[in-house]
Amino acid sequence: MAAPKTLRWGILSTARIGRKVWPSILLSGNGVVAAVASRDRAKAQAFIDENQAANPFPEAPRAIGSYEELLAAKDIDAVYVPLPTGIRRQWLIAAAAAGKHVVSEKPSAASLFDLQAILDACEHHGVQYMDGVMFMHGPRLQLLREALDDGRAFGELRRVTSTFSFCGDHAFLEKDIRLDSSMEPLGCLGDLGWYCVRFSLWAGKWALPRTVKGRILRSARRADAAGSDQVPLAFSGELLFDGWSAAFYCSFDSHLQNWAYVEGTAGIVRLEDFAFQQTGRRAQFWKGTEPIATDQYGDPHPKGQATHLYRTFAGLVLSGRRDPFWPEVSWKTQRVLDACLRSAQTGADAALG
Amino acid sequence: MAAPKTLRWGILSTARIGRKVWPSILLSGNGVVAAVASRDRAKAQAFIDENQAANPFPEAPRAIGSYEELLAAKDIDAVYVPLPTGIRRQWLIAAAAAGKHVVSEKPSAASLFDLQAILDACEHHGVQYMDGVMFMHGPRLQLLREALDDGRAFGELRRVTSTFSFCGDHAFLEKDIRLDSSMEPLGCLGDLGWYCVRFSLWAGKWALPRTVKGRILRSARRADAAGSDQVPLAFSGELLFDGWSAAFYCSFDSHLQNWAYVEGTAGIVRLEDFAFQQTGRRAQFWKGTEPIATDQYGDPHPKGQATHLYRTFAGLVLSGRRDPFWPEVSWKTQRVLDACLRSAQTGADAALG
Repeated sequence: MAAPKTLRWGILSTARIGRKVWPSILLSGNGVVAAVASRDRAKAQAFIDENQAANPFPEAPRAIGSYEELLAAKDIDAVYVPLPTGIRRQWLIAAAAAGKHVVSEKPSAASLFDLQAILDACEHHGVQYMDGVMFMHGPRLQLLREALDDGRAFGELRRVTSTFSFCGDHAFLEKDIRLDSSMEPLGCLGDLGWYCVRFSLWAGKWALPRTVKGRILRSARRADAAGSDQVPLAFSGELLFDGWSAAFYCSFDSHLQNWAYVEGTAGIVRLEDFAFQQTGRRAQFWKGTEPIATDQYGDPHPKGQATHLYRTFAGLVLSGRRDPFWPEVSWKTQRVLDACLRSAQTGADAALG
Repeated sequence: MAAPKTLRWGILSTARIGRKVWPSILLSGNGVVAAVASRDRAKAQAFIDENQAANPFPEAPRAIGSYEELLAAKDIDAVYVPLPTGIRRQWLIAAAAAGKHVVSEKPSAASLFDLQAILDACEHHGVQYMDGVMFMHGPRLQLLREALDDGRAFGELRRVTSTFSFCGDHAFLEKDIRLDSSMEPLGCLGDLGWYCVRFSLWAGKWALPRTVKGRILRSARRADAAGSDQVPLAFSGELLFDGWSAAFYCSFDSHLQNWAYVEGTAGIVRLEDFAFQQTGRRAQFWKGTEPIATDQYGDPHPKGQATHLYRTFAGLVLSGRRDPFWPEVSWKTQRVLDACLRSAQTGADAALG
C-alpha cells in the first residue's frame, strides 16, 4: 500500500488560534482538517462553518462533540491541540495513546514534569511531537543562521536580548485565560517568554544555560480564577551560558513589540519581529546598519511560517519518520522556563546542572 | 564690573578625550582653553600644539608642568578633568578648594563615598560640578521627552532596555587603563554602564530604583595592574522602580553598539545611538515604526552635544548661578552603579532604601 499523500488533521477545541491554523493546513498542500472537536458539538460545527466559508476544504470537516471521540476516530492521523496549558497534558497523553501525532500550542506544559510525561507518552506510542512555535519554520531562520555563522562579519556570540510584549486592556486583565492560574499558570512567561527563550536557545545552537535568573516584575491574582496563585504579568530573565548570556523581557502590560538583538564580537543582528512576521515588510533583519531583505509573510499565507510548520510536520509523519529534534527543543525551552520560574520564586539564581 | 563673557578653561591632563573637548570649547562661543597641565610640561605643550594647529584659539593656551600650578592660576575659571577615576577625587577636591568650577569625566568617582566628598567640596567652595555625559545636552533629549510625555502615543513607562558596548582588541585588553583596577575599578560599568544608568534615570524623571540587581558577566585581572581586584569586562544590571523597570548590558567584548528601547503601555521609542551620535544620520529615534527625523551631529561639531555641554556650563558659571541639577544626577547615577556593583559582589538584590 502506497503511503498516503495527505495528513488528516483533527483540531481539539475551537480556540481562536485555530482560525490561523486552519488556512495554514489548507495552504500546506499536504494536510486536510478532517474533524474539529469541542465539548459542545454545535460550537465545533459553528467553527467549521465559519472557517470553511473563508477557506474551504474540498470536503467539509465533521464536527465532533467530545475530545475522546475525535481521538478514537480512525480517519484522523494527527491533532492540533490549542487547549489551555492546565488541561493540555491529559489530552496530549490521550492523543499519543490513541496513536495520534501531535502539534501542541505553547507553552508545552505547565512544568517540565508534565512535559516529560507528554513526551514519554509520544515516544512510547511512536508519535511525532512538535510545539506550535511558528518562527522556527520558514526560510528566514536559515538566513539568520548563515549571518551568525559568518565568523568575520559576526564573530563570536556574546549576548542575545529579546522582548515580546503586548498591552492587555481592562477586559484582557479581567477575563483572559492567560491570567487564570489554573489554566495558564505561567502567564506571560509561558505565552511570550517561551518565544524569547526558544530564540535564545536557537541562537546558541541549543546549548543549555548553566544558570538562570528570573524575576516576576508584576503579577495578577484573579478573583475568578480557580487557583489562588499569582500569574506572571511581566517577567524578566537572564540566561548564563559559557562565554555568552541572554536577557529577555515579556509582559502583558507593555506596548506590542517582539524584537531581538543578537550581539557578536564583530557584528550585530537586529530583528524587529523575531516571533511574528507581517506581510509586506521586507527588510526584516539587520547586520549592523545594513538591512538584509527577506520577504516576510504574515500568517496565514502560502509562504507564511505557519504554512511551513504544518507542511514540515505532515511531511515528516507521511514519510514514516519521526524527528527527535522537535520534542527536544520543546523540552529544553520548558526546562529553562521552569528554572526561570524557580529562580523568581526563590529570589536566587537557579542552576540547570 | 561687568561679568566676563568668556569662561577660561584649564584642562587637567592630556588624555585623548581632550581632543574632542578642545574644539567643543572653541565652538561653544563662550569659552577658551587658557591652559593645559600635564605632569610633563613638554607633553602639555605637544598637546596644545597639536590641537591649536587644528582648532586655533585667538591666543594659544599655555602649557603647565603640574596640576597644582594650573589649579593655582588666577586666570583659570573652570577645569575639565579627564584624569583616571582612581586619582580623580583628589584633584577634583583640590580644584574646588582652588575655586575652580569643574567638568569631570565619568564615572564621577570610584564610589559614592568618593563622589560625596567631591560634591561636598564643590558645595563648600561654591563651584559648579558637572559630569561629562554629552547626551544630556543638545536638542534631541527634549524631543524625546516630549515623545515620552505624550500620554496617548506613549502611555505609561514600563521598561527601558539599553546596551552600550564595544569590542576591545588584544592590545586594549592587555594595556588599556579601563581594565586597570587601581585606575578604573568600575571597568565597563563605569565607562559604559554609566550612560545606560543615566539614560534610564532620565527616562524615569530621576526617580531612584527601589532595588537593583547587578552581575559581572566577565571580568579581567591584569598582571600589570597595581590592584589585584577583578575589573568588570561585561556587566548586566536590572533596576526596579515603582511600576516599571530598566535592564542594561555593557561590555568591552561585544561589537560597538549603543541602543535603547523605552517601552510604554501605548508606544515604543527606539534609539540606535542613545549615547553617541554620528553626523549625517537623520532618523535617530522611532516612535513605533515611524522615524522621527532629528539632525544629529557627531562631536566635535557646532551643533554637537559636547558643544552644547560646554556652552551650557560656561553660561551657568558666567551668569553667577549654580545649578544643583548637575551634581544631583551624577550622585544618583553613582548611587545606582554602586548598588549594582554591590549586588554583583553579594549575588543578591541590593536595596537603595
